Amino acid sequence: MRQFIVSGHEVPTTPDFSLSDLAGGAGRLDVLCRCVSAAFFLSHAIREDVRTSLVLADEFTVRFEGSELRRLNPDERSTAALIRKALDEREEAIGHMEVETSPGVYLSRRGFEPVLAAAAEEGSVVQLHEDGDPAVAIEPPDDPVFVLSDHRDFAAREVDLLDERAAARVRLGPEAIHANHAITVAHNWLDTEGYTGY
Amino acid sequence: MRQFIVSGHEVPTTPDFSLSDLAGGAGRLDVLCRCVSAAFFLSHAIREDVRTSLVLADEFTVRFEGSELRRLNPDERSTAALIRKALDEREEAIGHMEVETSPGVYLSRRGFEPVLAAAAEEGSVVQLHEDGDPAVAIEPPDDPVFVLSDHRDFAAREVDLLDERAAARVRLGPEAIHANHAITVAHNWLDTEGYTGY
Repeated sequence: MRQFIVSGHEVPTTPDFSLSDLAGGAGRLDVLCRCVSAAFFLSHAIREDVRTSLVLADEFTVRFEGSELRRLNPDERSTAALIRKALDEREEAIGHMEVETSPGVYLSRRGFEPVLAAAAEEGSVVQLHEDGDPAVAIEPPDDPVFVLSDHRDFAAREVDLLDERAAARVRLGPEAIHANHAITVAHNWLDTEGYTGY
Repeated sequence: MRQFIVSGHEVPTTPDFSLSDLAGGAGRLDVLCRCVSAAFFLSHAIREDVRTSLVLADEFTVRFEGSELRRLNPDERSTAALIRKALDEREEAIGHMEVETSPGVYLSRRGFEPVLAAAAEEGSVVQLHEDGDPAVAIEPPDDPVFVLSDHRDFAAREVDLLDERAAARVRLGPEAIHANHAITVAHNWLDTEGYTGY
């Protein structure tokens, strides 16, 4: 399985935001919506073997499970609607217990650390880093877990946790790119088995 | 310069659409908006050496010029607003004469053929094709022009024109992916000079 964890630093944790102002009034929820789209969409299919966890302000996590998703569309607004629907049930998420809020979409009251720890148990954490190995030079790990930040840098505490958990440090290219674009490039790296299979 | 031409088949050619229904009432304008975002954004900068032409229903073309753009944001809604603003001035676009409708955004009454022909004069048309050469196996051309279609396939006439004009046929990976994702992968291919420079 391919996993993506995206830490959203400037995002709502309550459902009282407008779908018509995702890049303003809703912090920068638009960034996370684009990450979900990049993680799951092929031309005429959903990537079923993908899990994407959006960490909202280190307080809630919305998990999207590719094999179970039924109502995902590629546009930002409809993805934001799924996130808002998840936050509508925030009072039901007690402790680390998850609530399924749409088919394949789960809300839990978990921050970055437990989400990363759980993913690291199941797969190999790949840290995207400007000093990492060029993607072309290494073989993609099985069950990779890519960890990304929204438009802000990772918090110092997140960097420490990543340093601790990372099985590999990878550089996807010479340019610093948006998180959703990094997800697309990571998929291409994996799809081609490290640029060897087309 | 890197050029992207995106042919939108199911999109508005008048400005009377709602920014809150881009993936429904506005055909699938959301697809083209994501292409613009993929074409121009780096983490903290705009790619200045990029031109992106959105062909709307083979009737109008909205050209985005990286070196001149001032008000582009990565979210779909704000890009759609720039396209709507361009269409607001559709009566000013006479013959092949362009109108600048926002800084770096131009509207013209041109369809797929003249836009492709003009780009082919200035650069090398790259046809993304499942029978193309694997991207990793060839050197990216100078001044590449990538030609993409929205969620629909190219029309037969467009395929013929592309076959005629293409300087290279390239395969970016084993999966069929959305146009905006193909733009991101193409940029990565170019940024790394064919997966050699990181």
